[in-house]
Amino acid sequence: MITLWELGGKDGRRYSLFSWRTRMALRHKALEFETLPVCMSDKAAIAFSAGKTVPVIRDDQMIVRDSWKIAEYLEDRYPQAPSLFGGAIGRGVAQTFNTWVDRAIVPAMLAVIVADIHERVDPRDDAFFREMMEKIVKKTLEQARAEAADAQKRLARALEPLQAALKRQPYVCGQEPAYGDYILFSVFQWARVMSPQQVLAPEDPLAAWRERMLDLFSGFARHVPTA
Amino acid sequence: MITLWELGGKDGRRYSLFSWRTRMALRHKALEFETLPVCMSDKAAIAFSAGKTVPVIRDDQMIVRDSWKIAEYLEDRYPQAPSLFGGAIGRGVAQTFNTWVDRAIVPAMLAVIVADIHERVDPRDDAFFREMMEKIVKKTLEQARAEAADAQKRLARALEPLQAALKRQPYVCGQEPAYGDYILFSVFQWARVMSPQQVLAPEDPLAAWRERMLDLFSGFARHVPTA
Repeated sequence: MITLWELGGKDGRRYSLFSWRTRMALRHKALEFETLPVCMSDKAAIAFSAGKTVPVIRDDQMIVRDSWKIAEYLEDRYPQAPSLFGGAIGRGVAQTFNTWVDRAIVPAMLAVIVADIHERVDPRDDAFFREMMEKIVKKTLEQARAEAADAQKRLARALEPLQAALKRQPYVCGQEPAYGDYILFSVFQWARVMSPQQVLAPEDPLAAWRERMLDLFSGFARHVPTA
Repeated sequence: MITLWELGGKDGRRYSLFSWRTRMALRHKALEFETLPVCMSDKAAIAFSAGKTVPVIRDDQMIVRDSWKIAEYLEDRYPQAPSLFGGAIGRGVAQTFNTWVDRAIVPAMLAVIVADIHERVDPRDDAFFREMMEKIVKKTLEQARAEAADAQKRLARALEPLQAALKRQPYVCGQEPAYGDYILFSVFQWARVMSPQQVLAPEDPLAAWRERMLDLFSGFARHVPTA
């Protein structure tokens, strides 16, 4: 049984976007796992991982941190289970895609939802989250909320290439979902769990793709506490 | 012997970025080919393809147009030759990457180099190119040239995620180049063939990657007429 450490928010929410990549990868590999919520400010809880961020997994004696490294570990450790990458070239392109999403899409989404996230983190993380995020977005949470409509427009522009891609094929990874899909999905699941804002218009090809993702593994990502 | 139709510019330049994807894919597959230059304005020359743009290839009786469709055709027709995609998942992610590059990087590069390209197209394409491109960039070529420094800054921002990705691994596709690399490389080769501007700083990780790409196949892309 694998254990996953991830961020816990109010009312049972599990909101670490990077941990959602790991959650989906574990389900893709059909691996059993249990999850443990931690506070963002509680570095002692994951000090055993030699890092300061989740996700962290423990698989038997093995401890692995960082969502990308965990995906590689799972692929190599469980080669008989369905593949996350489909081989060396697929792994390479997925890593490039991972970095692109992290640099171009994650910050654009954060600007839209950061104040909503703050309202739903564990109360013990309230001040820690505010201080860290105000440095990252370079404004107060109140300013971020006031400017959310502009941030939505920037997000839409950043997402436009991915809309176009998902008009051409049903998944980021082609005809079936794989790790590239979980990378992008994590950003929308983060928003879904922590923000009441509608970040995608219903007619957006990304909205239909997100529904397909929510249907995977018997609705695994759909049936969770959300905003 | 495969025949490739592509754009011909002044002094033997071959400058269609999409045709460079096909050129590199053909070399990756170790396939012999000859190339035929066409003018952008000469739609009659490629009317047999039932399309209006290059690249077009003829392989025996088979005619295929559109760089993505050509890559898929080559992969499926020559499965014993080195793989462009590494399987279904790699192909899917590569298609998503293809669309992302086309929508986020190609327009950013075009804004920087469009006036330089105009000076190096076949003289018969002079008016055609100007009319088409001024519609696309929504300004005159002279305005585009005057604003090239701003366009350079926007290009640098658009490229930042790919810089970060190429700090993590030597190629877009991991440890070895494959079609994802040719997608991105085509944009820099377009600039190299048609513009004297230095679009990458020497210390940029993308510049080192571009050198590796230029070294492939005995310097195939290096030893061509350039700006």
